[in-house]
Amino acid sequence: MEKLLKDGMEYRTENDSIGKKRVPEDVYYGVQSLRAAENFRITGLSMHPEIINSLAHIKKAAAITNCEVGILDKKIADAIVKACDEILAGKLHEYFIVDPIQGGAGTSLNMNANEVIANRAIEILGGKKGDYSIVNPNDHVNCGQSTNDVIPTAGKMTSWKLIEHAQKQLRRLYTALCDKAQEFDHIIKMGRTQMQDAVPIRLGQEFKAYSVAIQRDINRMDKAMDEMLTLNMGGTAIGTGLNADEQYLRRIVPNLAQITGIGFIQAYDLIDSTQNLDPFVAVSGAVKACAVTLSKISNDLRLMSSGPRAGFGEINLPAKQNGSSIMPGKVNPVIPEVVNQVAFNIIGNDMTITMAAEAGQLELNAFEPIIFYCLFQSIDTLGYAVETFVDNCITGITANEDRCRELVENSVGTITAICPHVGYEKAAAVAKAAIKSGASVRSLVLKEGLLGEEDLEKILEPTNMTEPGISGKDLILKGNK
Amino acid sequence: MEKLLKDGMEYRTENDSIGKKRVPEDVYYGVQSLRAAENFRITGLSMHPEIINSLAHIKKAAAITNCEVGILDKKIADAIVKACDEILAGKLHEYFIVDPIQGGAGTSLNMNANEVIANRAIEILGGKKGDYSIVNPNDHVNCGQSTNDVIPTAGKMTSWKLIEHAQKQLRRLYTALCDKAQEFDHIIKMGRTQMQDAVPIRLGQEFKAYSVAIQRDINRMDKAMDEMLTLNMGGTAIGTGLNADEQYLRRIVPNLAQITGIGFIQAYDLIDSTQNLDPFVAVSGAVKACAVTLSKISNDLRLMSSGPRAGFGEINLPAKQNGSSIMPGKVNPVIPEVVNQVAFNIIGNDMTITMAAEAGQLELNAFEPIIFYCLFQSIDTLGYAVETFVDNCITGITANEDRCRELVENSVGTITAICPHVGYEKAAAVAKAAIKSGASVRSLVLKEGLLGEEDLEKILEPTNMTEPGISGKDLILKGNK
Amino acid sequence: MEKLLKDGMEYRTENDSIGKKRVPEDVYYGVQSLRAAENFRITGLSMHPEIINSLAHIKKAAAITNCEVGILDKKIADAIVKACDEILAGKLHEYFIVDPIQGGAGTSLNMNANEVIANRAIEILGGKKGDYSIVNPNDHVNCGQSTNDVIPTAGKMTSWKLIEHAQKQLRRLYTALCDKAQEFDHIIKMGRTQMQDAVPIRLGQEFKAYSVAIQRDINRMDKAMDEMLTLNMGGTAIGTGLNADEQYLRRIVPNLAQITGIGFIQAYDLIDSTQNLDPFVAVSGAVKACAVTLSKISNDLRLMSSGPRAGFGEINLPAKQNGSSIMPGKVNPVIPEVVNQVAFNIIGNDMTITMAAEAGQLELNAFEPIIFYCLFQSIDTLGYAVETFVDNCITGITANEDRCRELVENSVGTITAICPHVGYEKAAAVAKAAIKSGASVRSLVLKEGLLGEEDLEKILEPTNMTEPGISGKDLILKGNK
Amino acid sequence: MEKLLKDGMEYRTENDSIGKKRVPEDVYYGVQSLRAAENFRITGLSMHPEIINSLAHIKKAAAITNCEVGILDKKIADAIVKACDEILAGKLHEYFIVDPIQGGAGTSLNMNANEVIANRAIEILGGKKGDYSIVNPNDHVNCGQSTNDVIPTAGKMTSWKLIEHAQKQLRRLYTALCDKAQEFDHIIKMGRTQMQDAVPIRLGQEFKAYSVAIQRDINRMDKAMDEMLTLNMGGTAIGTGLNADEQYLRRIVPNLAQITGIGFIQAYDLIDSTQNLDPFVAVSGAVKACAVTLSKISNDLRLMSSGPRAGFGEINLPAKQNGSSIMPGKVNPVIPEVVNQVAFNIIGNDMTITMAAEAGQLELNAFEPIIFYCLFQSIDTLGYAVETFVDNCITGITANEDRCRELVENSVGTITAICPHVGYEKAAAVAKAAIKSGASVRSLVLKEGLLGEEDLEKILEPTNMTEPGISGKDLILKGNK
Repeated sequence: MEKLLKDGMEYRTENDSIGKKRVPEDVYYGVQSLRAAENFRITGLSMHPEIINSLAHIKKAAAITNCEVGILDKKIADAIVKACDEILAGKLHEYFIVDPIQGGAGTSLNMNANEVIANRAIEILGGKKGDYSIVNPNDHVNCGQSTNDVIPTAGKMTSWKLIEHAQKQLRRLYTALCDKAQEFDHIIKMGRTQMQDAVPIRLGQEFKAYSVAIQRDINRMDKAMDEMLTLNMGGTAIGTGLNADEQYLRRIVPNLAQITGIGFIQAYDLIDSTQNLDPFVAVSGAVKACAVTLSKISNDLRLMSSGPRAGFGEINLPAKQNGSSIMPGKVNPVIPEVVNQVAFNIIGNDMTITMAAEAGQLELNAFEPIIFYCLFQSIDTLGYAVETFVDNCITGITANEDRCRELVENSVGTITAICPHVGYEKAAAVAKAAIKSGASVRSLVLKEGLLGEEDLEKILEPTNMTEPGISGKDLILKGNK
Repeated sequence: MEKLLKDGMEYRTENDSIGKKRVPEDVYYGVQSLRAAENFRITGLSMHPEIINSLAHIKKAAAITNCEVGILDKKIADAIVKACDEILAGKLHEYFIVDPIQGGAGTSLNMNANEVIANRAIEILGGKKGDYSIVNPNDHVNCGQSTNDVIPTAGKMTSWKLIEHAQKQLRRLYTALCDKAQEFDHIIKMGRTQMQDAVPIRLGQEFKAYSVAIQRDINRMDKAMDEMLTLNMGGTAIGTGLNADEQYLRRIVPNLAQITGIGFIQAYDLIDSTQNLDPFVAVSGAVKACAVTLSKISNDLRLMSSGPRAGFGEINLPAKQNGSSIMPGKVNPVIPEVVNQVAFNIIGNDMTITMAAEAGQLELNAFEPIIFYCLFQSIDTLGYAVETFVDNCITGITANEDRCRELVENSVGTITAICPHVGYEKAAAVAKAAIKSGASVRSLVLKEGLLGEEDLEKILEPTNMTEPGISGKDLILKGNK
Repeated sequence: MEKLLKDGMEYRTENDSIGKKRVPEDVYYGVQSLRAAENFRITGLSMHPEIINSLAHIKKAAAITNCEVGILDKKIADAIVKACDEILAGKLHEYFIVDPIQGGAGTSLNMNANEVIANRAIEILGGKKGDYSIVNPNDHVNCGQSTNDVIPTAGKMTSWKLIEHAQKQLRRLYTALCDKAQEFDHIIKMGRTQMQDAVPIRLGQEFKAYSVAIQRDINRMDKAMDEMLTLNMGGTAIGTGLNADEQYLRRIVPNLAQITGIGFIQAYDLIDSTQNLDPFVAVSGAVKACAVTLSKISNDLRLMSSGPRAGFGEINLPAKQNGSSIMPGKVNPVIPEVVNQVAFNIIGNDMTITMAAEAGQLELNAFEPIIFYCLFQSIDTLGYAVETFVDNCITGITANEDRCRELVENSVGTITAICPHVGYEKAAAVAKAAIKSGASVRSLVLKEGLLGEEDLEKILEPTNMTEPGISGKDLILKGNK
Repeated sequence: MEKLLKDGMEYRTENDSIGKKRVPEDVYYGVQSLRAAENFRITGLSMHPEIINSLAHIKKAAAITNCEVGILDKKIADAIVKACDEILAGKLHEYFIVDPIQGGAGTSLNMNANEVIANRAIEILGGKKGDYSIVNPNDHVNCGQSTNDVIPTAGKMTSWKLIEHAQKQLRRLYTALCDKAQEFDHIIKMGRTQMQDAVPIRLGQEFKAYSVAIQRDINRMDKAMDEMLTLNMGGTAIGTGLNADEQYLRRIVPNLAQITGIGFIQAYDLIDSTQNLDPFVAVSGAVKACAVTLSKISNDLRLMSSGPRAGFGEINLPAKQNGSSIMPGKVNPVIPEVVNQVAFNIIGNDMTITMAAEAGQLELNAFEPIIFYCLFQSIDTLGYAVETFVDNCITGITANEDRCRELVENSVGTITAICPHVGYEKAAAVAKAAIKSGASVRSLVLKEGLLGEEDLEKILEPTNMTEPGISGKDLILKGNK
């Protein structure tokens, strides 16, 4: 990983409890960010931009609120707000240098925000970076706050926003599946249980079922998102609210809600919300349940499109790229495959999140950084995978109608419809004979004289079999008499 | 594992599609159960009694409904109902011989129920076991049903009932924690973040936070339980409802709801509910989130009761058994330890459930048996672990009040309260000096002349630090002027 | 769960550090077992019989060794040995009443063994159960031992023995797969990548590949088993060996090895082996890797046997039971399905084991009981699943040779063999045209005049394509000149 | 995510089976890379540089080998080799534009390499990028290869190299722990089981135990690495070796071994190694077992350093950064915390890898990309976490010797050493009295007259208790007489 301090740089000297340290002259972060960046060279990646924005929102709301209640000088507060707005406009993100996987329960990230905002505010007030007598990262930017309330708050705000994007994609998927359900509603195909021929179904019914499952996932995510609206601000160090002005404590979350336009509320018990991260487990669980659905749909699409000649061959996925470096003409189900992989990753992330949440001790869970890293990745990749799933796969699926019907007509599975008329045992004997001889169910039933030709015609009509009811129930009732 | 067919037994001969097979004369199960028991010797365990009851409820409701709509003869229906009632009274359970981990998507379990009920109904009607011309397992007991709707229905019904028990225990835990919160509300102790001394908290606040987390878990389980109310009955083979009389299809779930007294409803899309098992993933997810909370609480109790002399020593867990075979007098936190282990097991089960749900293909998920095995175990063990947690641990916890206060008074963490008055940097210097020298914060602040004795007294009062607000805020405001 | 103390029972009174307690008169367990059984009503299951046997081996070896070094009276030692031998002969197992999921790091299980053995030894010496002045559970049966060395030792011994059984089954599977590889060596079938038609392969090559993977799993398990040979005996409380006579410490493991006939050795660092349970994680990991292989093979068998008419239909799995309660004649891949489910469960168990191993603290990991419960289940169910896999599935598989060949001949995938002769781009154009028009690759190549008929015949011979080499390489070399 | 095609760019037009597409004029990648980059916008991240290097090694070795056996023109081969060498020198990496999470089993990554190398080789031969008549990505760069053998080969080569780095760090950790073991060998401290005071241990013994565990992990990784030496090259499409010249097939892996200087060998069964990814599961399992050890050590360090005043306070971790944004002077165990989090992430990644390996179907596992993404991250982060663990934590740990001894001397746990002399029951009574009254074990034993003062002195000497043997065994033997 690259060194943050390089030869030939200009420096300023800052100090903290550990001691003095040189910081590159022109950067907005300070000594604490730099130490953290050096201590945690783990992934080499940057913090998610959305959590940087969440921090800017929090620091802005805190400055406004502290000013309102008379704890913070208006001039300083205004400068902090201005610095935060710059971050929200996409600036200064490159000065967030701490690794997403970091020790310290997010203190490094919080201090990175405090330092960047303080230094920019100092500049705004005409000072020089590093002159913390003008705006102090701890006493001013972090006023009334603690990493312990800021970081979980930022994590929840970010999760909420990211899920919002993912849900948008899921809703697009829902619509695309509904459209296909309608388009394919007339196509009879073989239904399979345990991969073995069962009874007929309409291709549209399949896609309808997929859409219903996706809708259920969206609903579950709605409920999970509610848990992300409940913020920790005001709890300070361990949730007791020590050093948070009582007025500030009452106003900080409403102010944050107003600034962001999102219905955030304060947690009912700030001590609980400081030490217990089960809400993130719940959100990850909802995302994971959705991943399960998506992976199952992808598996089905890969099965139904297997072929072109030696597989099921019922549907065609749009060809998006050459399938092989050696086999010419091969087209592979690359989009469902990427959805599968994203699902597997989300499931693994859920395990990491669960372990990290379980590992919290006493008044704080120190493992928020890994929870956020995994959860943000899960939500983001879910959204992006669904996006390509809709655009590069679902909407372009076509059906091989003839092939679908042919498989139904050759099948022995239609025997099930005869069952109510002749009993399971006789029906089973016919099925067995059909499979063995290759003959059709129809011919064998007629040969055995089990049903008349006209009745049989009615009973074996595949489309009837795709809806509730006993084909030829009147015959049974007549027979029962 | 023991052989089901033994020398010297009397036999009857039954047959199915595979061929003839001898079945012990006096047993209620039939040839299909027996084949399954032989094919699947995996765990050597029996099916959960509650799913056997759920199957009895289903078969009873189906017989009643089929009779109502004219598909099933009343005499046969009555005998089936009577046989089901015997099962619900706890009889005949020993004839459910299939292994909980079984192939075939639960067909073996469904047929085991069909056979036991048919044979008992045959006897009720004066026939001899095995004479399926009187009551047929498939044509009568399974009438209008398929394994594909019966088994997921039974799984949901069972999950609902088991969660009900677990929730009862969780509510007891909630109450026990609230009681402790009140009992310990006056006890000042050191709060710790990242296991390092932070700022004071009251022991009652800890237990209150635990109770709030448990309440949140109960609420999540409520939502998850709703997913278990939505039943598959009527879908038959692949959810299309083939061979289910339309009247039956409308009445079966209401009848099941009436018989059980539980508000079950029919799934909106029966095809979806046949192939997608994400609701079980969601339930397992809620159980898992609760396990995370329980494990975290257990970890805390083990930490706070560490000692008796070389640990935190803040609380005492009731001594429930000798702690060691070699170390006399040792008492260990055995109850929290079992809670931890149950939690770990639930988390592993959640992974199994997730994988099995993901592995479903096309019109059916064939892996319900392992999902049920794991989910029932998760819910049951959660309930039993919480039961012993309440009775043998939580209610008997006592506090070492003096020790708790002493740790606060010796601590450097109280420096935080001074921070708003002197700024983070000066406060940090005092803290560092205190830790190094072993001197108290109080003495150092006075020595440095940072605050007057009277002001300091007020600011350092520990109980004040456990509630929101800036100790001695008036001083600051005065200073700001 | 059933009460252990019932009305009308005769009792004796025992006492421990907790106090006095009534124990049923006729049972071999004592007060500590009883307390544990009451504290831990979690699964309602019993300990694995093999760990009971392992404990008997350990207690026997300890008695012999303590006697050898003069710490234990010969008369007492002999009685203990005799009691242990009875357990090893299958007696007294019903007096092991503690739940497999228990707190206390296995102290309850160890004391259960100590009490049962003491009471039986007392009887052997002519005393009355409960008269621990004759043989004392702690001072005599547990002499020189601690739960902390006994329980991990028992866990390792048990794992070793269970894996031995599982490996026997895996070796049978290996042989069965090799047999099928030979039987099917001449059958040409379509190879598929990403479920899309690729290039030909011989069915025997598939089964050969499966066998090679299984062999690799067996090898990995061998290595993992080695970790189970390294025992903790001698470490006593925390691995320092306190209270273990130095002679005893040197002789206990060799004696245990001699008694069991297994090459056990003493751990190099007994403190390490007391607190670190990574060897169990490693064993579980090897079992899990094998589960992955088995599940993959099962998935393939389910795919290749899909049909009978609307699927791949390349192979037939033996019909072992009726496939459906509603669909007559349906035969399902029930054995591979149970293998899949066992694999999913093993994977979940691996997660539990991992978490429990990670959760160990300081000188001991208190979570051995859940590790053992899950690990023993994983190994056992693997073995039993493989047993039924071999006997009820693999050995009975038949191939649909004509269908396999037909799929190859209809396929476009053979175009790959032409690629070296005409280049990827031209070959891709032919493939695309073939798929679109339904024409054969052969006819299109001839029509385009890309290759002569005789050359083409040689190049397109499917069997050639299943072995290394460029079909018609001489043509290329000739062309290159 | 950023658009790859931007307004105002110069373009060339390329085409593949999907059709024509504009590619920026000056880039080395081609149409297939570009399509893939558009299809898979999932993580926004780049491929690991080391797998790009592995691909360069493979393509270089293939060109050399194909040339040797007369299949590839020397001029073309030389150009390809030169292009590969440039990549190995760190150039051209920015043209690898495909997302690490991608569908298509790595075809996109393989084609990205083929295109970049072809275009650079074209330039070297004086042509213009995109003129594939000079050097063709498929026919020349990919000659004798398939994604199906190239990608698993690249994954194994990369894993091997990354583990090599991680192991180097683990060996440094081993040494650092051994050094501390020696440094702290004289420091007596309380041993704890289940967080309860047990018996004395020396701090050096703790660190020795850690080092032994780490050594075991290193050994396990050695074995796992062996599995990464077995390469797929020569298998081409599905492992049958179709289109790979027989001479090439024999020479390609030896050539690759020679070029890289690593002892790679060819897989015994190339069909098996194409479809089974259990070796990656095994490697991940070994990495995971190591993560468990590291996390356990980190947990211990956090416990032992808890305080400074209200915790165990036995050791001090070096202060690396301010611990809190609100609590001055707080120093947190940030380095162990990051190790914990990396461990949790590795455990989650193991789950993802396991699922992806299980999901392989028939002749290929299409999910290699996610396996590699997770596995590379696991190995890399393990190495980096260990690096900071050694440098910023382990080597700077200091002990609070007085505190350690004081805790031992106040403890009741020393009663264990008295046990062999007075029996468990009497010892337990003393222990109980000591805990209740606060009196010392020594005083109570003397008061009760259980042992003489001189004997007791010898028995209670803490250092003796940290080594095997019965303190005062001579007393017992004397007594036995």
